[in-house]
Amino acid sequence: MPELRKDPVVGRWVIISTERSRRPTSFIPAAKGTPAGFCPFCPGNEDKTPPAVFTSRPNRAVAGAPDWTVRVVPNKFPALQIEGGLDRRGEGLYDRMNGVGAHEVIIEGPDHAPELADLPAEHIAQVLQAYRERILDLSKDTRLRYVLIFKNHGQQAGATLEHTHSQLIATPIIPRVLQEELEGARRYYELKERCVFCDIVHQETADNNGRRVVAMNDRFVALEPFAPRFPFETWILPLRHDASYQETADPSESLALAVLLRDTLQRLNRALDRPPYNFVLHTAPVGDSDLEYYHWHLEIMPHLTRVAGFEMGSGFHINPTPPEDAAQYLREIAAEGPADPGR
Amino acid sequence: MPELRKDPVVGRWVIISTERSRRPTSFIPAAKGTPAGFCPFCPGNEDKTPPAVFTSRPNRAVAGAPDWTVRVVPNKFPALQIEGGLDRRGEGLYDRMNGVGAHEVIIEGPDHAPELADLPAEHIAQVLQAYRERILDLSKDTRLRYVLIFKNHGQQAGATLEHTHSQLIATPIIPRVLQEELEGARRYYELKERCVFCDIVHQETADNNGRRVVAMNDRFVALEPFAPRFPFETWILPLRHDASYQETADPSESLALAVLLRDTLQRLNRALDRPPYNFVLHTAPVGDSDLEYYHWHLEIMPHLTRVAGFEMGSGFHINPTPPEDAAQYLREIAAEGPADPGR
Repeated sequence: MPELRKDPVVGRWVIISTERSRRPTSFIPAAKGTPAGFCPFCPGNEDKTPPAVFTSRPNRAVAGAPDWTVRVVPNKFPALQIEGGLDRRGEGLYDRMNGVGAHEVIIEGPDHAPELADLPAEHIAQVLQAYRERILDLSKDTRLRYVLIFKNHGQQAGATLEHTHSQLIATPIIPRVLQEELEGARRYYELKERCVFCDIVHQETADNNGRRVVAMNDRFVALEPFAPRFPFETWILPLRHDASYQETADPSESLALAVLLRDTLQRLNRALDRPPYNFVLHTAPVGDSDLEYYHWHLEIMPHLTRVAGFEMGSGFHINPTPPEDAAQYLREIAAEGPADPGR
Repeated sequence: MPELRKDPVVGRWVIISTERSRRPTSFIPAAKGTPAGFCPFCPGNEDKTPPAVFTSRPNRAVAGAPDWTVRVVPNKFPALQIEGGLDRRGEGLYDRMNGVGAHEVIIEGPDHAPELADLPAEHIAQVLQAYRERILDLSKDTRLRYVLIFKNHGQQAGATLEHTHSQLIATPIIPRVLQEELEGARRYYELKERCVFCDIVHQETADNNGRRVVAMNDRFVALEPFAPRFPFETWILPLRHDASYQETADPSESLALAVLLRDTLQRLNRALDRPPYNFVLHTAPVGDSDLEYYHWHLEIMPHLTRVAGFEMGSGFHINPTPPEDAAQYLREIAAEGPADPGR
């Protein structure tokens, strides 16, 4: 059983894999190796993954084509395990609990080759809908407090399999980054009686003449945040106040988000020669869907610089590209790029 | 002038380089390149760095040998600039100030080849003394609140030059990670009237039979923390309560720390085949040397796993090696390794 342990000074929780303990030699690069050619996410290999917990089916069956468009399966090597109780306990001044939670893989499409940005917007909308369904389903489990959706694209960004996929980790505690965001947003609301993200959206789209805006449509804006940790870090926010991604049931919303996400990822691909990237969905915790102070959004972080000692030791990031410059590059590159079939 | 910008939600400060803005093409690997063979940190090239702000001289001059053992120079491409006022100002709901601060390089020795762990303990003690002198000198600048010492060893850990060196960044605000640590330690003190780090040292060395201890001497202990973010993350703490590294004037303390740091780095080198690593000195802020709730220490983080979307998005780390296992490997490997000439 994996274990959750809490740092006694800063309160940071860490997942410790106690069963598959990695010995020192397993970290030495020469010891690594991936079997080439075989992909457990490709059609025909469905029995090589645990049974699906969610499947999107195509609208029309085509002879010889796979019978699914998006598949969600439990991770074969989960960081957390779904069975068992939390069993909170101490060890002197330390706190620990069982590593209870869910770890799932969202296989974004049957074709091995394309990346998410290359899929049609209608297909990306199905992926976004799969995120929603899984968060809602896992929200029924009273042991879980948060469901985190994220994507590692490219080896340098942590992807271990090439076939385009995202991941879900559901945890029995609210992750630290989200907790800080929720607290910061709540403090702002107490002071101003306004949602800080609504104020950001308003200031970026109105007062600043769109200096940090990359693209927008009638539902969403893609922008470079004022204080980005990473060069070309890009956030997508709904224009209208909405705390909970998973509770937004409107299917036209999924399509509008898919169109803007596709557009943004394609601009990043063109500007930065298909960079590795991570994205993370920030949404309200399980059971807290009506927060007036929180506003869900997606944070996209291209992997262009190394996070080194200074960043890890201080929490301070050094960003060599001002967001105003990054936004301008990304706005202009689309105009010069090839036609975008997904819009 | 670089700029410090604050995220309006979580209060995270970011350094934005506004002058040397990196264009998208500069992030594409092919565009990179370092001139081979030339090293600005080697003796004879002293005029290729800005003038030294601190120099250790050898005890006895040897004909033909370099006239310095440790040299500290301003970074030629500083993240922060020492000149000017902070000029705090707003932009709608955002906060910013000038990127005032210091960014220096500690050249750990004249020889190009060896790494810090391979230098004699007496030489490492001189490096540690240089850290101290620079923190004390910069503490006189009333604009500065914190002096962070860190080391990036190996390209994957962020080192851009091979010649062994560490860095110093002095900032006009207390970095977030330190602020959280100070607050966590203060809360613990308010509750218990004891230093949480003293309690950790006591529990690890007494109650737990040293399960997480790597090595110790009469002044310091090297241990794997209870909730480490990274496999083989190792902390070195003084056994006696002491908030401020820089105020500890006793030279025998520097030597005792050097001996244990050398021993720890050598164990990591032997166990993990000379891994890239970062270390970060955690000490009391400028002007706060007598804190009864804080305890300086050094955090060493080997670079063995990738920090990916989940970690960045959640602040949650997944660590595949329990610290008890890591400590056991590190304790045992020394017994089998070659004799350690620095002890």
